[in-house]
Amino acid sequence: MNRQAFLNDVKMKNDQMILLSHGGGGLRSKQLINEVLVKRLGNPVLNMLDDGALLTLDRKDIVFTTDSFVVRPLFFPGGDIGRLAACGTINDLVMMGAEPRYLSLGLIIEEGFSLRDLERAVLSMREILDVAKVKIVTGDTKVVEKGAAAGLFINTSGIGVRLANADTRVSNARPGDVVVVTGTLGDHGAAVISCREGINLDSKLESDVAPLWGLIAPLLTQGTELHCLRDPTRGGLAAALCDIAEASRVGIRVREREIPVRKETLGVCRLLGLDPLNMACEGRAVVVCPERLCRDVLRMLHSHPMGGNARAIGVVEEQPAGLVVLETDVGGERIVEMPMGDDLPRIC
Amino acid sequence: MNRQAFLNDVKMKNDQMILLSHGGGGLRSKQLINEVLVKRLGNPVLNMLDDGALLTLDRKDIVFTTDSFVVRPLFFPGGDIGRLAACGTINDLVMMGAEPRYLSLGLIIEEGFSLRDLERAVLSMREILDVAKVKIVTGDTKVVEKGAAAGLFINTSGIGVRLANADTRVSNARPGDVVVVTGTLGDHGAAVISCREGINLDSKLESDVAPLWGLIAPLLTQGTELHCLRDPTRGGLAAALCDIAEASRVGIRVREREIPVRKETLGVCRLLGLDPLNMACEGRAVVVCPERLCRDVLRMLHSHPMGGNARAIGVVEEQPAGLVVLETDVGGERIVEMPMGDDLPRIC
Repeated sequence: MNRQAFLNDVKMKNDQMILLSHGGGGLRSKQLINEVLVKRLGNPVLNMLDDGALLTLDRKDIVFTTDSFVVRPLFFPGGDIGRLAACGTINDLVMMGAEPRYLSLGLIIEEGFSLRDLERAVLSMREILDVAKVKIVTGDTKVVEKGAAAGLFINTSGIGVRLANADTRVSNARPGDVVVVTGTLGDHGAAVISCREGINLDSKLESDVAPLWGLIAPLLTQGTELHCLRDPTRGGLAAALCDIAEASRVGIRVREREIPVRKETLGVCRLLGLDPLNMACEGRAVVVCPERLCRDVLRMLHSHPMGGNARAIGVVEEQPAGLVVLETDVGGERIVEMPMGDDLPRIC
Repeated sequence: MNRQAFLNDVKMKNDQMILLSHGGGGLRSKQLINEVLVKRLGNPVLNMLDDGALLTLDRKDIVFTTDSFVVRPLFFPGGDIGRLAACGTINDLVMMGAEPRYLSLGLIIEEGFSLRDLERAVLSMREILDVAKVKIVTGDTKVVEKGAAAGLFINTSGIGVRLANADTRVSNARPGDVVVVTGTLGDHGAAVISCREGINLDSKLESDVAPLWGLIAPLLTQGTELHCLRDPTRGGLAAALCDIAEASRVGIRVREREIPVRKETLGVCRLLGLDPLNMACEGRAVVVCPERLCRDVLRMLHSHPMGGNARAIGVVEEQPAGLVVLETDVGGERIVEMPMGDDLPRIC
C-alpha cells in the first residue's frame, strides 16, 4: 500500500487498541506518533521527529533526572499515570534547584491497550506541561505482547536549568535549621491504595500529584540559604527525612502533632496498618532552611494556592547524627526508621 | 531493625531474586542501588544519589534523546539488553552529531527476576560506557509484581554535546549526494530473531550492537558537508531511507547488489519470510554526503575496525521526491516501502 494512502485511509479510531506494529518503527508507529503524541504534545522541537532533540540552553549548569512510572491503577482519584509522569520528573528537577525545561517521554505499552486510555493519559500530561511551561522534546514508543507488561509504563527524563546559587542537596542540612513541609502528607499514597483496594471512605480523598515549580521557585531566590529540598515520594516523609539526616550527618527531631495529615489519609492508614510517615506524596516538598528564614519561607508558601497547609514540623540538631526522632502525640519519642520498602508497590 | 545492621547483615547474594521491596524506595531499594548499580556503574555524580544529576557542560548546544529497551530474549548472540540500552541511546546522540556524555538509567524489573542476570546486564552496559567514555549520572528503579512485566525493561535517556557545525538531520539530503552504509545490514535483527525462534544455522551470526561514536566522530569534522546520519534500527535500512527521502523531499536510488548483507542474515530472512532491508541494526549508520566527499568518508570508515564493510549503496536524486527506489539484483526496480511494523516485535 502506498504510505500516504495508508495514513489517509486508516485513521486511528477512539475504540482502537494498540497493536504490536504500533511499536515496530514503521508506518503504524508513525501513525501513533502523529495522531496521538505529536497531536497532543507537539512543539517545534518534538515535531522534528529526529533521533534526538537539539536544545540550546541559556546556562551550562543543568540538572538531568529520570523516573519510570508503573502506578496501579493507571487512573486514580486526583490523577493518572500521565499527570504523575509529568509531575514526578518536573518535581525532581525542582528539588535540585532547577527550573524544569524539557522532558523526554518513553512509553512501553501492552498490546491491546486502549487507545482512548492512552490519549487520556497523554492529555493529562499535556495539562501539566502547559502549567509548568515544560516541553516534551523527544520520545520513544515500544509495544510488547499481551501479558508482557501491565497496560502502560511511562518513563520521563528531564532537563532543567539550575538557578544561580541554588544548592538544595540532601547533604546540606545543618544544626539550627528548621524542617518545613509544604502541605498534608501521604494523600497520593492513600488515594492510590484506597482506589486499588476498593476502599470507599465516602470521602474526597485525592492524590496531591502536582508540579512544584510555582510553589518552590520563590523560595529559590534565597540562594544558598535554602539548605535542602526533597519531595517525599516513595517511602514518604520517613524516607525523605532519613535521607537528609544520613547525608547531612545531623539529627532531625520532628513533632508528630505538627505533621499535617488529612483525616481521610489517616483513616486509610489505620485500616490497612500503614504508617502515614511512609506514605508517598507527589506534590509536596520537605524544605530545610535556617531558623531565621522560617517565617519568610512559610509566608511565601502560604501565599501560594498549593502551600496553604505548609508547616514547620521540626528542627535539625547535631545529635543523634544520622537519625530522625519523632516526638509522638502522647509525649514519647521514637526513632523514625527508613522504611523497608514492602508497604506499597507500584505507588508511582 | 537498625538500618546499618540491616545493610551489613543482609548482603545481596548471587542467587537472590528481585523483590517488590527492591523498588519500594526504602532500605531494600538502597541495598540494590548500592550493591549493584553504584558498585558497577558508580562515578562521582551518580554516587550523590540525589533527585537528579547536576552537570556542567562545555557548550550550550546539547542533544537530548530517550529510548526504552524491551528486547526478547534479554541475552542473545553478540549482546544483551544492557549492551543494547547503552548503545542505542549513545548512537541516537551520535546520529544527531553530538558527542555522547551522560546517560540516565531507568529500570523496570519483574518481581522474581534473577539478580545474577541483572548484574550481567549492568556489567555489559558498563563495558560499553567505558569504551564510549559515557557516564550514567542518574537513575530510577521500579519493581512490579510477577507477571506485570517481562523480566527487565530498560530506559536510557542521553545528553550529548553537539559538535560545531554538525547538522546531520534526516531533512538535509540533497540531489547529488551519495548514500553510504557503515557495515553489513540486519545482523542485530537476524541474531535476535534466530535466537528467539530457536533457529540454529550452525553459524556465527551475532548482533552488530556497538557504540558508533568512535567510527563516526572522524566524519563529523566535515561539518555541514556531512548531510545526514541515521542508524537503521527498528524498520531497518528501509525505514531509515524512507525517513530521509520523505524529510528531505528527495528521491533515493539504491542498488541491491551494493547493499552488504551477511549470508547468515540472508538465510534467516529467507527462512522466516523477512526482508533484509527491514531488519534492524544496532551498530550501523547510514551516511549521506556530497558525492565528492564519498571517497574520504569511505576511507575514514574503512580505517576503523567497525567500518571494514562500509559501502556506497546509492545516490540521492530530485525525483521521485519522497520515495526510495531499489535497483534489484536481477535488473528490475521496485519502490522500497516504509515497513508497516508487523515483522519483528521486541527487537530492541
